[in-house]
Amino acid sequence: MNVDVSTAALESNVRGYSRSWPIEFERGVGSTLVASDGTEYLDFFAGAGALNYGHNDPRLKQVLVDHLANDRLVHTLDTFTTARTDFIHTFKRLVLEPRGLDYTLMFPGPAGTTATEAALKLARKVTGRTNIVCFTDAFHGMTLGALAVTGNAKKRGGAGIPLAGGTVMPFDGYLGPGVDTLDYFESSLRDSSSGLDLPAGVIVETVQAEGGVNVASVAWLQRLRALCTEFELPLIVDDVQMGCGRTGGFFSFEEAGIVPDIVVLSKSISGFGIPMSLTMFHPHYDVWQPGEHNGTFRGIGLGFATAAEALRLFWTDDALEREVRRKGEHADERLRAIAASHPAAGLETRGRGLARGLVFPDPAVVEHITAACFGDGLVIETAGADDEVVKLLPALTIADEELDRGIDIIERATAKVLGDASA
Amino acid sequence: MNVDVSTAALESNVRGYSRSWPIEFERGVGSTLVASDGTEYLDFFAGAGALNYGHNDPRLKQVLVDHLANDRLVHTLDTFTTARTDFIHTFKRLVLEPRGLDYTLMFPGPAGTTATEAALKLARKVTGRTNIVCFTDAFHGMTLGALAVTGNAKKRGGAGIPLAGGTVMPFDGYLGPGVDTLDYFESSLRDSSSGLDLPAGVIVETVQAEGGVNVASVAWLQRLRALCTEFELPLIVDDVQMGCGRTGGFFSFEEAGIVPDIVVLSKSISGFGIPMSLTMFHPHYDVWQPGEHNGTFRGIGLGFATAAEALRLFWTDDALEREVRRKGEHADERLRAIAASHPAAGLETRGRGLARGLVFPDPAVVEHITAACFGDGLVIETAGADDEVVKLLPALTIADEELDRGIDIIERATAKVLGDASA
Amino acid sequence: MNVDVSTAALESNVRGYSRSWPIEFERGVGSTLVASDGTEYLDFFAGAGALNYGHNDPRLKQVLVDHLANDRLVHTLDTFTTARTDFIHTFKRLVLEPRGLDYTLMFPGPAGTTATEAALKLARKVTGRTNIVCFTDAFHGMTLGALAVTGNAKKRGGAGIPLAGGTVMPFDGYLGPGVDTLDYFESSLRDSSSGLDLPAGVIVETVQAEGGVNVASVAWLQRLRALCTEFELPLIVDDVQMGCGRTGGFFSFEEAGIVPDIVVLSKSISGFGIPMSLTMFHPHYDVWQPGEHNGTFRGIGLGFATAAEALRLFWTDDALEREVRRKGEHADERLRAIAASHPAAGLETRGRGLARGLVFPDPAVVEHITAACFGDGLVIETAGADDEVVKLLPALTIADEELDRGIDIIERATAKVLGDASA
Amino acid sequence: MNVDVSTAALESNVRGYSRSWPIEFERGVGSTLVASDGTEYLDFFAGAGALNYGHNDPRLKQVLVDHLANDRLVHTLDTFTTARTDFIHTFKRLVLEPRGLDYTLMFPGPAGTTATEAALKLARKVTGRTNIVCFTDAFHGMTLGALAVTGNAKKRGGAGIPLAGGTVMPFDGYLGPGVDTLDYFESSLRDSSSGLDLPAGVIVETVQAEGGVNVASVAWLQRLRALCTEFELPLIVDDVQMGCGRTGGFFSFEEAGIVPDIVVLSKSISGFGIPMSLTMFHPHYDVWQPGEHNGTFRGIGLGFATAAEALRLFWTDDALEREVRRKGEHADERLRAIAASHPAAGLETRGRGLARGLVFPDPAVVEHITAACFGDGLVIETAGADDEVVKLLPALTIADEELDRGIDIIERATAKVLGDASA
Repeated sequence: MNVDVSTAALESNVRGYSRSWPIEFERGVGSTLVASDGTEYLDFFAGAGALNYGHNDPRLKQVLVDHLANDRLVHTLDTFTTARTDFIHTFKRLVLEPRGLDYTLMFPGPAGTTATEAALKLARKVTGRTNIVCFTDAFHGMTLGALAVTGNAKKRGGAGIPLAGGTVMPFDGYLGPGVDTLDYFESSLRDSSSGLDLPAGVIVETVQAEGGVNVASVAWLQRLRALCTEFELPLIVDDVQMGCGRTGGFFSFEEAGIVPDIVVLSKSISGFGIPMSLTMFHPHYDVWQPGEHNGTFRGIGLGFATAAEALRLFWTDDALEREVRRKGEHADERLRAIAASHPAAGLETRGRGLARGLVFPDPAVVEHITAACFGDGLVIETAGADDEVVKLLPALTIADEELDRGIDIIERATAKVLGDASA
Repeated sequence: MNVDVSTAALESNVRGYSRSWPIEFERGVGSTLVASDGTEYLDFFAGAGALNYGHNDPRLKQVLVDHLANDRLVHTLDTFTTARTDFIHTFKRLVLEPRGLDYTLMFPGPAGTTATEAALKLARKVTGRTNIVCFTDAFHGMTLGALAVTGNAKKRGGAGIPLAGGTVMPFDGYLGPGVDTLDYFESSLRDSSSGLDLPAGVIVETVQAEGGVNVASVAWLQRLRALCTEFELPLIVDDVQMGCGRTGGFFSFEEAGIVPDIVVLSKSISGFGIPMSLTMFHPHYDVWQPGEHNGTFRGIGLGFATAAEALRLFWTDDALEREVRRKGEHADERLRAIAASHPAAGLETRGRGLARGLVFPDPAVVEHITAACFGDGLVIETAGADDEVVKLLPALTIADEELDRGIDIIERATAKVLGDASA
Repeated sequence: MNVDVSTAALESNVRGYSRSWPIEFERGVGSTLVASDGTEYLDFFAGAGALNYGHNDPRLKQVLVDHLANDRLVHTLDTFTTARTDFIHTFKRLVLEPRGLDYTLMFPGPAGTTATEAALKLARKVTGRTNIVCFTDAFHGMTLGALAVTGNAKKRGGAGIPLAGGTVMPFDGYLGPGVDTLDYFESSLRDSSSGLDLPAGVIVETVQAEGGVNVASVAWLQRLRALCTEFELPLIVDDVQMGCGRTGGFFSFEEAGIVPDIVVLSKSISGFGIPMSLTMFHPHYDVWQPGEHNGTFRGIGLGFATAAEALRLFWTDDALEREVRRKGEHADERLRAIAASHPAAGLETRGRGLARGLVFPDPAVVEHITAACFGDGLVIETAGADDEVVKLLPALTIADEELDRGIDIIERATAKVLGDASA
Repeated sequence: MNVDVSTAALESNVRGYSRSWPIEFERGVGSTLVASDGTEYLDFFAGAGALNYGHNDPRLKQVLVDHLANDRLVHTLDTFTTARTDFIHTFKRLVLEPRGLDYTLMFPGPAGTTATEAALKLARKVTGRTNIVCFTDAFHGMTLGALAVTGNAKKRGGAGIPLAGGTVMPFDGYLGPGVDTLDYFESSLRDSSSGLDLPAGVIVETVQAEGGVNVASVAWLQRLRALCTEFELPLIVDDVQMGCGRTGGFFSFEEAGIVPDIVVLSKSISGFGIPMSLTMFHPHYDVWQPGEHNGTFRGIGLGFATAAEALRLFWTDDALEREVRRKGEHADERLRAIAASHPAAGLETRGRGLARGLVFPDPAVVEHITAACFGDGLVIETAGADDEVVKLLPALTIADEELDRGIDIIERATAKVLGDASA
């Protein structure tokens, strides 16, 4: 392979993905990645959800070229610009209004974690309380505030300081079948000696991506919403990875019919992989003072331009949403078939929309499977506390043929690694 | 003016700059901004330091157009890419090697605050300690870790939770003339009952931009470096706003002849206003485990492309550095003349390179002066705890005529507001 | 009644018990309290467990009189004294050795909360970790470290600052019948993405007194011990209220056959109501530096004197232990009979040894019952998050007649308040 | 000597004073200590300030004997008792009223640190803020809240967790002659970007005992009071060691003519060395809810009895106060003479009332001097960050002859250790 050893030597040891895929990539179109030596790969990773519309959509490229040709502004902090105005109105018209949502928009910085931090700060300001409830296996970001509500021990340990301000509750399914994990949360809320400080808010992913493609049921989400309403706890949905159509609807919480108080978006919101994020909340939550939260990259001209166009391209009707559901179900069927063909291995499937997981009771095999996939031309990552899940996160625009081709590769890799003759 | 009221209504109250400049901007080239109604403004703000090379440099635009035309990758997390490799090697060759610096590079996310958080986490990991010393009037970012070492009370209050892990020491000059403020820090370090927990690191801006264009003297920085060395405290220089040539040298600490242990860069590192940041440190500090800190936007294809080209355009020789010093001195001369022409008002000047401040003992007049500037076609911001400083932060590439024209406007505005006949 | 209004006016509003029993007490002998107007009360409260051997035992009084007559030292910080030596050796001989326990003793200050703080500090020092696991409804003290592992919301709120360093897990029975609450703790320990930072220790009461006389089962305690051993978590038993024979054995954990790593004692350790506490731990845990924890009242001459004598009086054989069990079972039988006589009210009993509770599903009636008891000459307190438990905590030396007389009063009060004719 | 090795082996390594004075003490009267082998020592330590009236005053002993003989209550939580009533009224009549002080009393537990914690909690409750300002070299207690405002690095390190909620400011004199350290505090308060979160309160010792007998000047204390008043910061005086007449007046702040908002007393308040403490505050500060802070040992019968009698014995007139000042000045004169007789050693004296220090620029000699004192029959301790101060803390009732005899011993020990012929 063409690993650039000298480049790796200049970079910190913290780099991760370049270990799984020790190759230099150069180009990409749609779901195809091309290495600098010309090798092609099928992309089932989609920038960890930041490329829901694939690489280099030509229509979004054209928007950027036009933007540049007209010397439109690229960096503007939070001044008004034509690109900002266009995005805001397009988001309102195509996303919020059709869903009956009335949210105020905040651009809190370019990273998902800056948007999460803004959400947590706001929930604390609104309530005057400090304790944020999060869930087992949650992932919300790497800055101290977001890290405090993230479950992963290695990442938490990276803080080098005890993380404060978060209380963990068990996510849906965590205590096994037959136990509604919200019983514990509810008891703790009702019991004035439970030790649970009345929360400033609850932050949840409807599907935990990094945590292992763990899907919260509709009933669980509805009960969580009801508890938050009863106890006046702001409900924050972190839709960084599951938003922008990943599970079907633009927002992942639509399926449960709930309305969060605060929503965090990032990753695919620009539609093109440009750093951008968004925090949204009820207008009556807007207790910020001017400038109380700021940051250099809150006026991302290139991002606004592609983001608005992406909404126009993909969210004027429900075509994409239906396609995501259809492809997602197809993917799950095929994964279930793979599981069924290795009955001794005890595989399971999980997921919603085009976030899908193939779960291996024996985590040791998973890295071999994804390595075999990579050798066979498929870029795919793992998830879960022990990397026990092969996680499918293809572009939402993936062609049926590509989707099947990728799953074929997974099927072969699984058979090969499990030492099974069925491949 | 053309304020888009309906857009403002959709945005959170937290927006700030659009209050000072209640107009919709559309285009920009070099130091010229153009509103959507065609009005032109001279830019003395430069994206708060994110646009050191001005708006839409045609050579950088071309790099982006080529990048897009070739379907180069835009989003890649931390995989190897040709654009990443080019940036890393160019940065090493043009920035690090000529300055005798041997730093390992880390891409910690797109925002300056994510780079600061990575720096703080690393200092804590390296030392096994938790307490970071920062300085009065410091500004390091809005996420919880960075906010804990930031001075501004309103921004700190936005956290909604007590900020932990930082100890403030007085910045150079804070205790008035004749007091070396490092005496207190040194006493506290030597005194085992001072209450100062042995720091995990010290974070400093060599010139505090947001804090009021407060310049640390070379002697003070050298003594700080010596103290950090003696007590084995990682010295972190936050060069987010003062780096990339703002004070003359590529790094602001070059003038003091010191070598920090960790350096944080963002804002102008991409050269084009694209969100990007960088944390650098001694190779032996690189104790990160793979993936211990991560984030979606650590492989910013567009940013890598313009960043590498900007280095090639501006940092192959010392021409820019000399120009920045020359223009900076000229600006200071002119500001001193303005101060001299209003002796009763007690104005002072501060600054280094092209970060300059005109300080008003009476903060109440400053917003009127910058408003008058805006009315006269100049975009310029304030700084300092009470917004008592008119802060000049023009593009480093500003033409002499533009620089003088902008200062003419400041001169007139000052005269007008101070009610002086000298204009 | 003889409430001293002027005294109350001089005292802070924080006073509590003097509201339940608005009378001025003067004298006490055994289980009898005498008010300053001569009224006698039967004591089912025993100083909240600080008077396990009753008031003013004449033999302990004599020890004090002799101590004073000989000008023995009363206050000595942590110097060696004859009284200290006597206590230490007596404790070793009569308490530790017969139980096969090898603990190092630490006198961390006079209050139970100072002993708890010392335990928490030590667990953190030993492990180098910070997070202490505690349980729902726990009560460990009012100073910040101990309060952080205490459940009561009002008391936590008194801190005026977010409490850090504790993680709550559900106590035995908290999730209802059929759920072993340690499943959640164990899952969280095994799952590296659970969000549970590897604990520095686990602090538990075997019977939660303030929390509502909640009894942890032997099996639960044994499983907790096994988990702590497997994950190398110091197990701290807070025996402040349940130690010194309250549940039968000198230590409350004896019944479960477990050996904690750290034990906290206070309340009845002096045997006479004198402020005194003790933290004990395995000798290999003794990583304290000299003077690393200190305090004015660590050499309590009067307390050492009565404590040593109390051990000699009550713990040279198992007579007291057997009596406590016998009386406790008798009390429970009688309480069960009261419950049975009010079937509609759904009363339950809880407890172990002479810590007994009568639980009312309707908390509203309980204060009326204890008020009625007081009117009938019985001093008795409530427990539980909603004060839903009538808590019997008589002196261990109470006579059978007194015990029955007190329960008769409870029986009458219950009948009266529940409006039942069965009394 | 008669060190009980087997006792030491049973005790934790944390013990401290028994290392300086490796002997077993048995009895004490006034300023005389008697070891169990009959050796007599003169006491210049007075229980670290807990025995201001000396050991075993016969009149206080008699009070205890009478208390016991009458079966007065020893332990009562916070119920009203005759002893409590007597103490409260006596304190009001003899201490508060003559000084024009109107404080509400709170019994927060038996230890000084519990009283400090109550003070900090209350300041936070009253203000709704969290940050407590303390001073370099401060000592306020060993529980987490109090430890967070204590300066000593070893003791802070004992927490095993980062200490939160305190900000250190330089104590009077800390920045050398010519610098008023409150300039920094005032600047930080007035500067909204100083990084100093508006405090919930300020805690100060007027004379830092453990910190090195550092005396705050009257002017400094008055300026501190004025700043606290202007910024509405509760001023807490920790008079645990300097109260009860140690510096002359009953409260140490009387000399400065200031009135704190909250006062913490312990150590000598019982007058006999019995654990007891007290938190006092303005009646309008009394925002506690009933039971919001509690604790087992808030009704210390024996302590109330001796405390009330001690007030009657020593505080009905100003005789003690005058004697303390006279003896203190005499002690300082003699210490200055010792300093003068060793001009090369650069000794200084510090102190107020009967808290006196002899400061050695070379800390290494000090332990040899106090060891020599002990060998010569004097019990005396050191103070300061490096134990660079010989600290005289005799009983206030010490006879002139005893005081001179003790200082003679110090004089000889100093001469011997400094190798000087002048002794």
